Amino acid sequence: MPVTGDQQLLKQLNRMALVRQVGAAPGLSRAALAEVLGLTKSTVSLLARELIDEGWLAESDLLTTGEVGRRATPLHLDGGRLALLGAEVGIDEARVVATDLLGRVVDSVVLPYQDPNDAPGCIALAGTGLIALARRLSRRNAAGGARRVLGIGIGLHGAVDEASGVLRHAPHLGWRNVDVGAQLAARLAGSPLAGLPRYMQNEANVAALGEFEFTPQSATDPLVYLSIGYGVGAGVIVSDRLLTGLRGFAGEVGHAILQVDGPTCSCGRRGCADALIGLGALLATVLDEERPSYAALETLVGRVEQGEAASCAAVDEAGRQLGVLLNNLWASFDPMAICIGGPALRLGDTFIAPARRVLADYAAAAVLAPPEIRTSEFGADAVAVGAAALARYRLTRPLDR
Amino acid sequence: MPVTGDQQLLKQLNRMALVRQVGAAPGLSRAALAEVLGLTKSTVSLLARELIDEGWLAESDLLTTGEVGRRATPLHLDGGRLALLGAEVGIDEARVVATDLLGRVVDSVVLPYQDPNDAPGCIALAGTGLIALARRLSRRNAAGGARRVLGIGIGLHGAVDEASGVLRHAPHLGWRNVDVGAQLAARLAGSPLAGLPRYMQNEANVAALGEFEFTPQSATDPLVYLSIGYGVGAGVIVSDRLLTGLRGFAGEVGHAILQVDGPTCSCGRRGCADALIGLGALLATVLDEERPSYAALETLVGRVEQGEAASCAAVDEAGRQLGVLLNNLWASFDPMAICIGGPALRLGDTFIAPARRVLADYAAAAVLAPPEIRTSEFGADAVAVGAAALARYRLTRPLDR
Ligand SMILES: [Zn+2]
Ligand SMILES: [Zn+2]
Repeated sequence: MPVTGDQQLLKQLNRMALVRQVGAAPGLSRAALAEVLGLTKSTVSLLARELIDEGWLAESDLLTTGEVGRRATPLHLDGGRLALLGAEVGIDEARVVATDLLGRVVDSVVLPYQDPNDAPGCIALAGTGLIALARRLSRRNAAGGARRVLGIGIGLHGAVDEASGVLRHAPHLGWRNVDVGAQLAARLAGSPLAGLPRYMQNEANVAALGEFEFTPQSATDPLVYLSIGYGVGAGVIVSDRLLTGLRGFAGEVGHAILQVDGPTCSCGRRGCADALIGLGALLATVLDEERPSYAALETLVGRVEQGEAASCAAVDEAGRQLGVLLNNLWASFDPMAICIGGPALRLGDTFIAPARRVLADYAAAAVLAPPEIRTSEFGADAVAVGAAALARYRLTRPLDR
Repeated sequence: MPVTGDQQLLKQLNRMALVRQVGAAPGLSRAALAEVLGLTKSTVSLLARELIDEGWLAESDLLTTGEVGRRATPLHLDGGRLALLGAEVGIDEARVVATDLLGRVVDSVVLPYQDPNDAPGCIALAGTGLIALARRLSRRNAAGGARRVLGIGIGLHGAVDEASGVLRHAPHLGWRNVDVGAQLAARLAGSPLAGLPRYMQNEANVAALGEFEFTPQSATDPLVYLSIGYGVGAGVIVSDRLLTGLRGFAGEVGHAILQVDGPTCSCGRRGCADALIGLGALLATVLDEERPSYAALETLVGRVEQGEAASCAAVDEAGRQLGVLLNNLWASFDPMAICIGGPALRLGDTFIAPARRVLADYAAAAVLAPPEIRTSEFGADAVAVGAAALARYRLTRPLDR
């Protein structure tokens, strides 16, 4: 019987459903997986065999179950043979990581920009980092195994139209309508990465996927990931899907107005959350820095740690505005948890504690329990790892756009 | 071969996919539907036969297509034999409608409350309205046919936990943790409606579904429906699904803060959109009305139509705050369109024009095109018709929770 297009699609859907299920609940046997997925045991065995051969899955040692004589072989994601590449085209630098299928970083490279205004140069630099990591992955490593790269994710600091590969607007870089997809394709042409699936999304969106795909709390759904760096943005996951909106702007809550006629924002509006909470605005206010940088952030962190009054007051005020934004995210999305990430976490409790307090006050006034507020564990790699998570997310959901 | 549970589910999924497809693109032939749905022509013919027998679908007259001798029978939803019931448990009254499968109102009843503080009495009244309409539908009508009721939807003015049937909090009614599902079940027990599927949701959510399921613009996705009555709430549809959030609070954007330390809101917080835009707050400010009512709204509408300065200024200010909320909904959800509905539309352009202006100013500042802003056509029936749409939405998506 010939395998038609429909049957191939169905098979790929079942293969990836099996991968997702093994990722969500490692250690199940083929029989248990067949039960959960509503497939026959022979189908699961066939697909598992393929996925083991290709490096997606691995078998653990046999476990003997309670019943006499019945033994089941637990399956889990294979952390050793495949890789995902993730790149953050950041504000000061390109940051590229390779992860295994479980999101553990196995290699990384950071490439500082020559000139952040030169968008093509910055994008080409990210491509250079991707190629460098791919080359290293293809060599036999200390443990003896090379890794095959499955796909590439890119995280960008602005609103991204994923279908066209165009970065619409990155206010903290000053870039507009940059055709990142085409520029990256040109850089990767002729390299071993040329033919691989590539996906791109806003930095907060990919960081949300990193949190969703690669942490043990992945059952958190709906999940809002609030990224606070120079700018402020959110990634929102609902019913196992990333919300992107009509043009990739969904979750751009940095440009929701918190204070009518407030300070002018990088986007041109006045009173946006970004201009009240983002590090760009905070560094400009406290340090009079025209262009935000990691060095300026460290200066601010130092002053806050020493308890310098004006700096602490400014950070406290930003933290209170963050509390208002948390309330508004709660009202809009009713998430199970809001995860805060990004460089602003360096400011510690001087920043986060007032936000928690303001949110708690709103919740008390409304006699409602607020969502869990937690902070990301991925640190400076959150966006690059999230970009790798985007690749796993898209590869294992073949029908989603 | 026995029909297993899985096969029955698959059949029901295919049946309802066929209904949705015919609703979205009326007039297709069985062959065209088979093509679109990826089913065999014989499966479509079998399912269509059943659905015609049951009253879901009807055939139009034969159309002769271009090819000689080939004739296709167009299918469309049958507007004549089935009915959906929708009830709004409102602020002053219960409003119940019966619609056909296409959302056209075929019967309705409005029952004013004796005492809005008596939640069980108000819910029983809605049940009374539902039973009355069901009785009328079961009689042979002028055209000769009775209608079979497929299901019941309920729209409630507060956050609803659909799974448990509990209305968590309806601030403008002062109700908390009302077990609407159980109370309605008790009222309908022994009636012909006792065994029918029942669904309940927040009023803005059902009105959003009315707009999404029952209008020719149903391809609008993502869609935000902003309901402005005594309170303010939104229903959000993304990728063909209603966002409900963890506990049914998603879209409760009336309790997003627009003005820190602003006026006290019905929810207990200060500076919520509800307290700056909602009719409850507006009527309290302008008319010093303690309890909002339709009569008070008509008084305000009259003053605005006569150009009374203080009333116009208050409505204009509420309209400008509405513009801020529209910007924030745009930033959060990136919708294709925001549809404004609810009693506040009675205030006309005095209210809506400043909102459009403020949104246009934000869009110009950010050099971005804002989403389309439109107003609902369903008028006072928007929530009750939306409740009927909720029933169609759930019945035709058997796998969604
Ligand atoms: Zn802004
Ligand atoms: Zn409120």
